[in-house]
Amino acid sequence: MNTYFTEEGSVEAVNARIASDTEPRLAEVMSALVKHLHAFAKEVQLTQDEWEIGIDFLTKTGQICSEERQEFILLSDTLGFSMLVDAINNRRPEEATENTVFGPFHVVGAPERPMGASISLDGKGESCLFEGRVTDLDGNPVEDARIDVWSDNSDGFYDVQQPGIQPKWNNRGIFVTGPDGCYSFVGIKPVSYPIPDDGPVGQMLGRLGRHPFRPAHMHYLVTAPGFQKVVTHTFVGDDVYLDSDTVFGVKRTLVAPFEAVEGGATMWRSPFDFVLVPIGKDQ
Amino acid sequence: MNTYFTEEGSVEAVNARIASDTEPRLAEVMSALVKHLHAFAKEVQLTQDEWEIGIDFLTKTGQICSEERQEFILLSDTLGFSMLVDAINNRRPEEATENTVFGPFHVVGAPERPMGASISLDGKGESCLFEGRVTDLDGNPVEDARIDVWSDNSDGFYDVQQPGIQPKWNNRGIFVTGPDGCYSFVGIKPVSYPIPDDGPVGQMLGRLGRHPFRPAHMHYLVTAPGFQKVVTHTFVGDDVYLDSDTVFGVKRTLVAPFEAVEGGATMWRSPFDFVLVPIGKDQ
Repeated sequence: MNTYFTEEGSVEAVNARIASDTEPRLAEVMSALVKHLHAFAKEVQLTQDEWEIGIDFLTKTGQICSEERQEFILLSDTLGFSMLVDAINNRRPEEATENTVFGPFHVVGAPERPMGASISLDGKGESCLFEGRVTDLDGNPVEDARIDVWSDNSDGFYDVQQPGIQPKWNNRGIFVTGPDGCYSFVGIKPVSYPIPDDGPVGQMLGRLGRHPFRPAHMHYLVTAPGFQKVVTHTFVGDDVYLDSDTVFGVKRTLVAPFEAVEGGATMWRSPFDFVLVPIGKDQ
Repeated sequence: MNTYFTEEGSVEAVNARIASDTEPRLAEVMSALVKHLHAFAKEVQLTQDEWEIGIDFLTKTGQICSEERQEFILLSDTLGFSMLVDAINNRRPEEATENTVFGPFHVVGAPERPMGASISLDGKGESCLFEGRVTDLDGNPVEDARIDVWSDNSDGFYDVQQPGIQPKWNNRGIFVTGPDGCYSFVGIKPVSYPIPDDGPVGQMLGRLGRHPFRPAHMHYLVTAPGFQKVVTHTFVGDDVYLDSDTVFGVKRTLVAPFEAVEGGATMWRSPFDFVLVPIGKDQ
């Protein structure tokens, strides 16, 4: 039996319309969405003008999306929603390496390189040796772990943002561990950069007094047979934006040392170990 | 002091970034929005795949918007959000005429017509005499009330949806009350019609087992010097969609009689009185 709409019974009026043969998970998600959206409007006593501003904002956010730009993901990122979904879906034992957001700049098919090789192809930036071990929860080395890495160049751009300017696969590569679980490669000390801020999300950040920057970070996608995938970054510990990442990607355990190297082959050294969780093991 | 993101402290991490000199109402609305959005994701334990479906849905909803189509308003309407905002902003004493959603089909500048005139210019449909009084809360007639009315034609389309097919201003007109507060005009008994359902919102309704129809209704915008504006409809009481309006616009008090007239000038008669609230009077 449907009921007419009332302010008090608004949630029930809407959710009563969901047909009984609706796919159960869809019904669960949609009815919760209606409940929380209505609770929001009631809590702030949203005005008609504010509703119109919201409609206009969402419309502009959709209209600026293109093959090259996903403004709704930016919106989700800057409201901490992407990180929340990532956290909900990647709970791990305390000693395991934590996840963070994937970001839009991963490219499938990066070249596999020998351990110790350099991924920096444009000769720019301050060279850095990245090295460490991949282990299980008990500290045993993980063999055949694929470590897919990517970072911006020293101008703050990924290669895919500058086709024809940066060499293809600049600052990208895949490294596969041997029986000792060790990895090492040469890249650059990454630099901080702003997310695209010339659209609705940038305007929102401006109105909230927020900057659009991400602190400098190296991306990692680590997979190994029998282990849960890890999507994460390591962050440069002295970055000025470390505690104000505009997409909230920083976790304390992901802040890595970047040590100045005197007279070495690279200017910096950044050690970081990855600890993987077996498939099937819950937190 | 900013803090790193955690699942438990996700709301605080995001809202701590709002600058202290942010416009206070914006800060209030945005921090409540973040709180309720995060509560939604936590309650349903939103998966990464579901998040991607949501991003894709919002993007398509924005991309189908044009000068002629506003899919985000349709989304707001079909989730009961538009009616909720309307209810929050138009609370009135119980005896006053209730508001409902404005809808997208009002046009400013409809011709003012003499009392009793017909607004049906295409000769289609079942004629109906609409009549009643405009009064204050004490039953006193309200003079100089402007009653701006609009409806679809018997094919279920407004004139602006069929330029060149329907006469301009078909089923629209403005009537101004005299000292007795009475109004009357001839229109047609309106018919039910679907909202545009060939886009993302239509797909959503389909997945939820919901139809896209609105029950037949006559639109009214009633204004009078010294009184609060009323935006409302009257609904045809025997409509099959009366208790399942896809935009939740129906309120019990807005269901009007449509009485068959034997041997009269019109086939139907629909009496309805408007009771206005003085400006400045709260509920």
